Amino acid sequence: MKVKYELLKNDTKTSSRYGLLHTNYGTFETPMFMPVGTLATVKTLSPEEVKEIGSGVILSNTYHLWLRPGEDIVNKAGGLHKFMNYDGPILTDSGGFQVFSLAKKKDITEEGVHFKSHIDGKSLFLTPEKSIEIQNKLDSDIAMSFDECIPYPADYEYAKESTLRTLRWAKRGKDVFNNDNQSLFGIVQGGEYEDLRHLSAIETVKMDFDGYSIGGTSVGEDKVTMYKMIDYAIKYLPKDKPRYLMGVGEPIDIIEGVIRGVDMFDCVLPTRIARHGNAFTRYGKINIRNAKYKEDFTPIDNCDCYTCKHYTKAYIRHLIVSNESFGQRLLSIHNIRFLTKLTEDLREAIKNDNILEYRDNFIKNYRGEHENTK
Amino acid sequence: MKVKYELLKNDTKTSSRYGLLHTNYGTFETPMFMPVGTLATVKTLSPEEVKEIGSGVILSNTYHLWLRPGEDIVNKAGGLHKFMNYDGPILTDSGGFQVFSLAKKKDITEEGVHFKSHIDGKSLFLTPEKSIEIQNKLDSDIAMSFDECIPYPADYEYAKESTLRTLRWAKRGKDVFNNDNQSLFGIVQGGEYEDLRHLSAIETVKMDFDGYSIGGTSVGEDKVTMYKMIDYAIKYLPKDKPRYLMGVGEPIDIIEGVIRGVDMFDCVLPTRIARHGNAFTRYGKINIRNAKYKEDFTPIDNCDCYTCKHYTKAYIRHLIVSNESFGQRLLSIHNIRFLTKLTEDLREAIKNDNILEYRDNFIKNYRGEHENTK
Repeated sequence: MKVKYELLKNDTKTSSRYGLLHTNYGTFETPMFMPVGTLATVKTLSPEEVKEIGSGVILSNTYHLWLRPGEDIVNKAGGLHKFMNYDGPILTDSGGFQVFSLAKKKDITEEGVHFKSHIDGKSLFLTPEKSIEIQNKLDSDIAMSFDECIPYPADYEYAKESTLRTLRWAKRGKDVFNNDNQSLFGIVQGGEYEDLRHLSAIETVKMDFDGYSIGGTSVGEDKVTMYKMIDYAIKYLPKDKPRYLMGVGEPIDIIEGVIRGVDMFDCVLPTRIARHGNAFTRYGKINIRNAKYKEDFTPIDNCDCYTCKHYTKAYIRHLIVSNESFGQRLLSIHNIRFLTKLTEDLREAIKNDNILEYRDNFIKNYRGEHENTK
Repeated sequence: MKVKYELLKNDTKTSSRYGLLHTNYGTFETPMFMPVGTLATVKTLSPEEVKEIGSGVILSNTYHLWLRPGEDIVNKAGGLHKFMNYDGPILTDSGGFQVFSLAKKKDITEEGVHFKSHIDGKSLFLTPEKSIEIQNKLDSDIAMSFDECIPYPADYEYAKESTLRTLRWAKRGKDVFNNDNQSLFGIVQGGEYEDLRHLSAIETVKMDFDGYSIGGTSVGEDKVTMYKMIDYAIKYLPKDKPRYLMGVGEPIDIIEGVIRGVDMFDCVLPTRIARHGNAFTRYGKINIRNAKYKEDFTPIDNCDCYTCKHYTKAYIRHLIVSNESFGQRLLSIHNIRFLTKLTEDLREAIKNDNILEYRDNFIKNYRGEHENTK
């Protein structure tokens, strides 16, 4: 089936909304945070742990799975769910962002993008049709249109050219899309330019996708610009379809995205910072390597996750300092749970019409920066 | 309490025996395999996973915990169990083996061993008293006497000198031992020499430890010599105390050890080979990186572990090739379960008086070598 968005409540003071996402693997409340399982594994975690954290949809990367193990192997395994033993909904991105972020040299043509593999330097060519074909074979629940992610800042002429090309790519991908069990989302681009975001949004919506995402944020722009990029686009997106802000995972940005009407977020942040010993807390990120945690026998935060219920900062610090992967696992569980709980709290705030108070209170406590590790 | 060994059945044709080990954390059947959690973590696994595998006792390393995080921090945490959240029995080794295997330069004196830290090259000095003091603070359930692990081969004069010194060290350690909640095991050394093993066994037993281990095997000797080392010593060990063969984890060696009357085994092998992509099977070890598993959608083995119940070789291969730590985790679960199940089968065989048939049948199937990875 195609995913269906059911709007249950609009906030009275903001654009935030509480709803349900109906999927092949059950119904999940929105706004939601989607942890990233790049290579068909949410780094260090089992599928059971991901579910216990309260995750609904997880995200896997088309580009990475294309290279390893290859979409045909995943397809022969019976699709991504069977391959990785995850019986929850999976979203695959289009590969566009990885081409943007991982490829050192790339050549963008009307037909597609020529670039080198980040693993072995091999020449690769990704097109809208190829991206969709791979995703059809991966058999995720939600596939994304192939787009170009424009850097920030980008000059207007280039941004316009790219935005128009991404629209043509969206159409080409949609035309070859062939999987009744899978949904296809369109992606709004347009860089930092209001008229291009507007154009991209209305033209993408005209193609009638199953959901819409806002791409090209989290590419180095300041927060004011990021929020503007959302504002420019989101008002043109239909109310009866899910709205997904790609690559956003800083707590403050999730809150601001929800206030603007976003339903879905994904980010590698919780697992990536875990690998470097960082943990989210209500008071900002902390680095567990800090010497002050050597004899701190309290949990990371007042939190309901497996990690905080059973382990102290002193133990996790010991694991991280000793490069024991169980430490990354404990921090990943906590960090994903932190963002998942954040979206649970935001849903409650929408229901209670107090999301602005929630935001102000959150920001008052949360410092938002990495703690000095010395 | 001190651990207590309860002998339930002697095999009629071999020296193998089925019994129970009563500990602070419950009663466990023997023969048993003890997985290694060097730095207060069985690499990549949670305590719950270790228990689900059927592990009873786990082993942690005194030398490693002395260096990181330090025994005082573990002690302040409430001991090793609380520190690492493991409510099963824990055995700590004495550090002697790590001094032997990790230190590049060492100076063995009557007082103790001077050597350099494998982490930062710092000068360290470990004595029998210090080893016991650290273990008392770690508060494991079973502590080991500080010994010198002699290399193989060793000339007779040196072996004799070392064996006598290890006996004096055992006495010194026992004299300062001070933890009513902890047991202390003596270690039989003597290299490859029958008279020295004999001497070491009877003198160690005279000191009346809570259990006895056979050390200095698995140091490069051939299997015939290893089994002789066991034979030379084990007949002098009392029937009412547990017998522990240190550092042994090859399936065939566990079987031969059990046949000779050993109750306890430990080895890093199942987790170490997992990190290199190797898995135990009934037909020998396989390397999951092998290209022939690319599209092998069957489990590693006909096995009751979490890994084999849920994941295919193709998926685990993908994880290992992509350096995803969940792959090591899945292989570690399987490999520890393999050795744990082996000891379960051996216990059944003892009860059924058919351990020799079990051994012959096992060896017939098991190739015992690493599979070529190409």
